[in-house]
Amino acid sequence: MLSLPKGFLLSATACGLRKKRLDLALIFSEVPALTTGLYTTNKFPAAPIKIAKARLKKSAFCQAVLINSGNANSFTGEQGIKDAKDIIDFLAKKLGIDKNKVHISSTGIIGKRLPIEKIKNGIPFLVNNLSRKNLYKVARAILTTDTVIKITSKKIKIGLKTVTLIGIAKGSGMIAPSLATMLCFIITDARITKMALEKAVKKSVNNSFNCITVDGCMSTNDTVLVLANGQANNSLIDITGKNFRSFSLALSDICLDLAKMVVKDGEGATKFIEIKIRGTENNTQAKKAALAIANSNLFKAAIYGRNPNWGRIVSAIGASGIKVREDNINIKFSSLKKKNIFIEANLGKGKGSSTIYTSDLTPEYVKINAEYN
Amino acid sequence: MLSLPKGFLLSATACGLRKKRLDLALIFSEVPALTTGLYTTNKFPAAPIKIAKARLKKSAFCQAVLINSGNANSFTGEQGIKDAKDIIDFLAKKLGIDKNKVHISSTGIIGKRLPIEKIKNGIPFLVNNLSRKNLYKVARAILTTDTVIKITSKKIKIGLKTVTLIGIAKGSGMIAPSLATMLCFIITDARITKMALEKAVKKSVNNSFNCITVDGCMSTNDTVLVLANGQANNSLIDITGKNFRSFSLALSDICLDLAKMVVKDGEGATKFIEIKIRGTENNTQAKKAALAIANSNLFKAAIYGRNPNWGRIVSAIGASGIKVREDNINIKFSSLKKKNIFIEANLGKGKGSSTIYTSDLTPEYVKINAEYN
Repeated sequence: MLSLPKGFLLSATACGLRKKRLDLALIFSEVPALTTGLYTTNKFPAAPIKIAKARLKKSAFCQAVLINSGNANSFTGEQGIKDAKDIIDFLAKKLGIDKNKVHISSTGIIGKRLPIEKIKNGIPFLVNNLSRKNLYKVARAILTTDTVIKITSKKIKIGLKTVTLIGIAKGSGMIAPSLATMLCFIITDARITKMALEKAVKKSVNNSFNCITVDGCMSTNDTVLVLANGQANNSLIDITGKNFRSFSLALSDICLDLAKMVVKDGEGATKFIEIKIRGTENNTQAKKAALAIANSNLFKAAIYGRNPNWGRIVSAIGASGIKVREDNINIKFSSLKKKNIFIEANLGKGKGSSTIYTSDLTPEYVKINAEYN
Repeated sequence: MLSLPKGFLLSATACGLRKKRLDLALIFSEVPALTTGLYTTNKFPAAPIKIAKARLKKSAFCQAVLINSGNANSFTGEQGIKDAKDIIDFLAKKLGIDKNKVHISSTGIIGKRLPIEKIKNGIPFLVNNLSRKNLYKVARAILTTDTVIKITSKKIKIGLKTVTLIGIAKGSGMIAPSLATMLCFIITDARITKMALEKAVKKSVNNSFNCITVDGCMSTNDTVLVLANGQANNSLIDITGKNFRSFSLALSDICLDLAKMVVKDGEGATKFIEIKIRGTENNTQAKKAALAIANSNLFKAAIYGRNPNWGRIVSAIGASGIKVREDNINIKFSSLKKKNIFIEANLGKGKGSSTIYTSDLTPEYVKINAEYN
């Protein structure tokens, strides 16, 4: 049993958005927590994201996050904003806290109005059942087509104090940088400055969620939300020094763990593929080449077929637009019989490198997405 | 039975590159034909493309094109160039023509050395059996995973003379702009200037092969080769005027016909999808949005499932990077029960428009590409 960071309480319930399963969760901090959010770059962010972005601009503190699955509240126009605010106000009142410190996060079907009565009916139970024991339930309530819950945790020492970080995520389809389509919530009791938290989050996300792709599709609801409530009472972490590095490393580990879990749970996936590109002029070129491979349907189908078709790899690199010469390329494959595949291509031009994680393309992926409504 | 343009002869044979099927074809013009070639923009063009480009730079005339399926002669390095030249020299000698006017075009597996002895053994038969009757055999010999041959023709009047155009193509996987992965050979007896032919070819390809996508993957062998031998003896077509418009239109029709045939024969495809974007600031933005939809696996799987999931369309538009506002979008679907699907999205911002053709993503596509070696 993982222990929560100090000062956080959780609850989850089945409010009827999905059939007989947990679909509504609440993350609550006993004190307002310093909060950093990174959101989808899709030009059409869902209603909850528009609200969250606006509120985080005004104040970097958040005390409660309500998360629902089953409905994304995306492409719901002004009504969607109104519905989300209505629920936020209702929840804030029940919790007795400032409504500007309440966030809502939604995932599921696009373009249908949020069933607000169902959610409101579920809220009293959530508020009355907040506890330190509901982590697994919350992790389950936020899932959509995922087949497994995704939780990871880290503890670090800052001076004599123990700081705990816990991350949960959902996501298995519509996974693409940047961000991978998913929701990720990380809670920590670290005491940290706003700038230090932002810096650590950006760096961690860039090396994790922005390095995974399942199908190259970017959702309208992608969210990484990190809440740091300071209850570990450690000496304040600032943007430099040993403590920052230690916190930043822990956060990176949390993000990379979750990002890999998302790819492993990729819709219909039978393989987890790590693609490393080396020997480019710079890291950006390496990432471009690695992504071109990771988003190639032909490559992904070949891996599903356990077919070490390096022609499709070089062809994808050649189409990626980066600077490269044919005669310098060196490609290594690990055994394609295993679940975890490692592929390294050295392009022999410089010191740039990048690693991207992806899954294979399978008939099952197509079936899941042909039938999902 | 389609009649060939004047002065062209064809032949095809099974030389053993593929199992018991036609795999080697020859297109021959009795006089050197003015030739325009458009090739893959993949950074790693196959050996035959490197040779063809170099030769067309020196002289715009070509008299014979040898085409083999079963092996792409791609990623074969210096050896690949040597092999292709070796075959060209051999064929030129047998035909008794200038070797610089002989092209070779290859399609099939990447990264394996071309079996030159098999090809050389097939050449005498090709040379001895050139005739005006082998169009269907040639169209069949160039196929790989295609399920149907792709031929189209047009006749136009230039003054009192009849000009004939015939186009054949192969391609069903690795189809992406620009170009769609495919080989396309168009022969015509038109008398036309070099500049006029180039202008007509560029325009035609841009509105056809550069508007189709099956899987977003760009091959190393894409080729559109147009041979005009002047044997119709029409008054010379120049870059302006009624005759140019007439020829250009016929060539565009040929290209669009073939491009649509390629998409309809898309690997595992059950649907032919026409995506029209209107109401963007300009045509480039419209094309970007249409391509984003056409290359979205989620969208393509939804169409396979006959699921009018407009959320995936707007999500793809939002991720495409074009300028657009959520509240202006208007989307129309034709019935998803039919084989031919028409989707129109009006983005309400301007007069730009673009049409892209694509196919659905099916479990069969994955199976074909998992097993293909």
